Amino acid sequence: MTETTSTALDPAWWSEPAARPSVSVKAAASERQNQLTKPPGALGRLEQIAIQLAAIQNQVKPSLEQVHIAVFAGDHGIVEEGVSAFPQAVTVEMQRNFIRGGAAISVLARELDATLEVINTGTHADPSHLAGVVHGPIAPQTANFRHQAAMTEAQWQQALCLGWESVQRAAERGVKLYIGGEMGIGNTTAATALLARLLNLAVGDITGPGTGLNQQGVQHKIRVIQHALDRHTNSLTDAGAISRILGGFEITALTGAYIAAAQQGIAVIVDGFICTAAAAVALQLNPSIRPYLFFSHCSAEPGHQKVIEQLGVEPIVDLNLRLGEGSGAAMVVPLLRLACALHNQMATFAEAAVSEKLENG
Amino acid sequence: MTETTSTALDPAWWSEPAARPSVSVKAAASERQNQLTKPPGALGRLEQIAIQLAAIQNQVKPSLEQVHIAVFAGDHGIVEEGVSAFPQAVTVEMQRNFIRGGAAISVLARELDATLEVINTGTHADPSHLAGVVHGPIAPQTANFRHQAAMTEAQWQQALCLGWESVQRAAERGVKLYIGGEMGIGNTTAATALLARLLNLAVGDITGPGTGLNQQGVQHKIRVIQHALDRHTNSLTDAGAISRILGGFEITALTGAYIAAAQQGIAVIVDGFICTAAAAVALQLNPSIRPYLFFSHCSAEPGHQKVIEQLGVEPIVDLNLRLGEGSGAAMVVPLLRLACALHNQMATFAEAAVSEKLENG
Repeated sequence: MTETTSTALDPAWWSEPAARPSVSVKAAASERQNQLTKPPGALGRLEQIAIQLAAIQNQVKPSLEQVHIAVFAGDHGIVEEGVSAFPQAVTVEMQRNFIRGGAAISVLARELDATLEVINTGTHADPSHLAGVVHGPIAPQTANFRHQAAMTEAQWQQALCLGWESVQRAAERGVKLYIGGEMGIGNTTAATALLARLLNLAVGDITGPGTGLNQQGVQHKIRVIQHALDRHTNSLTDAGAISRILGGFEITALTGAYIAAAQQGIAVIVDGFICTAAAAVALQLNPSIRPYLFFSHCSAEPGHQKVIEQLGVEPIVDLNLRLGEGSGAAMVVPLLRLACALHNQMATFAEAAVSEKLENG
Repeated sequence: MTETTSTALDPAWWSEPAARPSVSVKAAASERQNQLTKPPGALGRLEQIAIQLAAIQNQVKPSLEQVHIAVFAGDHGIVEEGVSAFPQAVTVEMQRNFIRGGAAISVLARELDATLEVINTGTHADPSHLAGVVHGPIAPQTANFRHQAAMTEAQWQQALCLGWESVQRAAERGVKLYIGGEMGIGNTTAATALLARLLNLAVGDITGPGTGLNQQGVQHKIRVIQHALDRHTNSLTDAGAISRILGGFEITALTGAYIAAAQQGIAVIVDGFICTAAAAVALQLNPSIRPYLFFSHCSAEPGHQKVIEQLGVEPIVDLNLRLGEGSGAAMVVPLLRLACALHNQMATFAEAAVSEKLENG
């Protein structure tokens, strides 16, 4: 059992701007791409990814060897309303599965040679017997946001800080890429409520089955969320309040982690629907972090497409995933690594003595 | 310098059906996916990929360690019509770049720990000085199909056979996955003409810039292709004739390779626009091979989307690639490998003692 260390962070640490990625390195990396033995732009998204990583890492040839995956688990008071297809016990059971190596994210971490940590931000059942879980429980679960704010101000700050702490551990290991994942029965309900209000989207347009609700279940979920939004309408005044009143411990920890990673100059891959909700809050709390965030995939959760459009971001793949745990973010790591390898190792036209494009081409 | 071995193949070898992937193994692999610790279907496309590979390999837990990449290079008589932005010398210069390790596909092969071979199917300049190139030159280039058939019947058979030979070399190494790539200045013109006739698509709808024509160049390319289709209209009676009259040595070799791989029970990843043209011919010559073909990506070449729809196939990623060489196919190898790792290594609900979905969920 690992205890989180106490920190004396400035309460508004999350508003400190991240450094702007290097403009000159970005230009040099773009220039390099144009000299490689291929028609200009022929590697599409992979060229842009390599150039962006170069700017973030402040080196023309970026690298992504060390990847850190942190999965934040938390329980949600809103499950009292019957909004999930799985029992709440799964939040703890899956933490054990993460640690023992049987979950999707465990397999992916092994295959990618990434470090994996599991952070308990507060779950209904007691996971203190699980060796290897980072314990940071804020409360057994959030409050039921249909009736009251999910978190107090102190709990919200504490959750943000759990994300910050995870990034410090990653930074100490010299990590080049940070992936946050989540596990929390009921958390698509919290994420949907949060996104609806934050991005001014209709609840009915972005509410989906989560882990597997049927159509009747989805309709019930919509009513629960709409009721909550109406209940809190006068309090949902900014991203911080929206996150605190409608979010979750693990979602808020992810928000804190994304901001902290950017502040440390570490690139982030955002996973699916829930993580996008955390990122959407982070982007409003601290817009300077935008250049550090790569969005991995368009989720099968039907609201994700609309959310992505609203955020003006472009996911890398669309594989009909809807698992969470950070699994979709982990899956694109090889594409980012290949983008770097191509950028770093391909020969230029001059080096390879290959003829360039004709002038009238 | 490696000489290709002569073979005494039945001239209609390509019509021999491939074995149907195992129905019982497919069912067992699907059943396994449903027991893994995730909501059913939550891994989306990756579940389907793993199940299909299991059926192809006739084992519930498939593997993809050995990957073989074969890049076929060939020159095209049609370049006399001014349809490419790059000089024809590039076809040979790039073979040298492939062998020396500076091309995109060379980098990808190294990163994926895949074997890479380059096959010269017939190029204008003499590449016989290039150590490591498999020499199978049919002629210095195809005939200019604006005026005559690109290939004679004998040349077409010879080109198909170059693909077959490449697959035999791969099979001898115990390869689980075969990737074909292509290099040939002018080959988007051949592929576009072929696809327009084969799939009954309007030339103007599927003609694009290839390696980088400007808008005027694209209009000229459309006129050249349309003229050729009109010229040969009475001869373009079936997939074989369309391939022979409008195709290229390297495109035809790919057609032969795709068929031969399926006949050997080896899964194939199809690259972009040119390779899809080769696959489209292969699918008409021998429909039994369809279950063995995975389509890697939707190319930035604007006609590719329409071609894909017409073929009823679903590419795995869309990264705005338009390089060829097999590079897009190589890029998805890690996704296929992760699909296998997840399928093979994740714990079942029973193994992990994780609660399953609620009955009313």
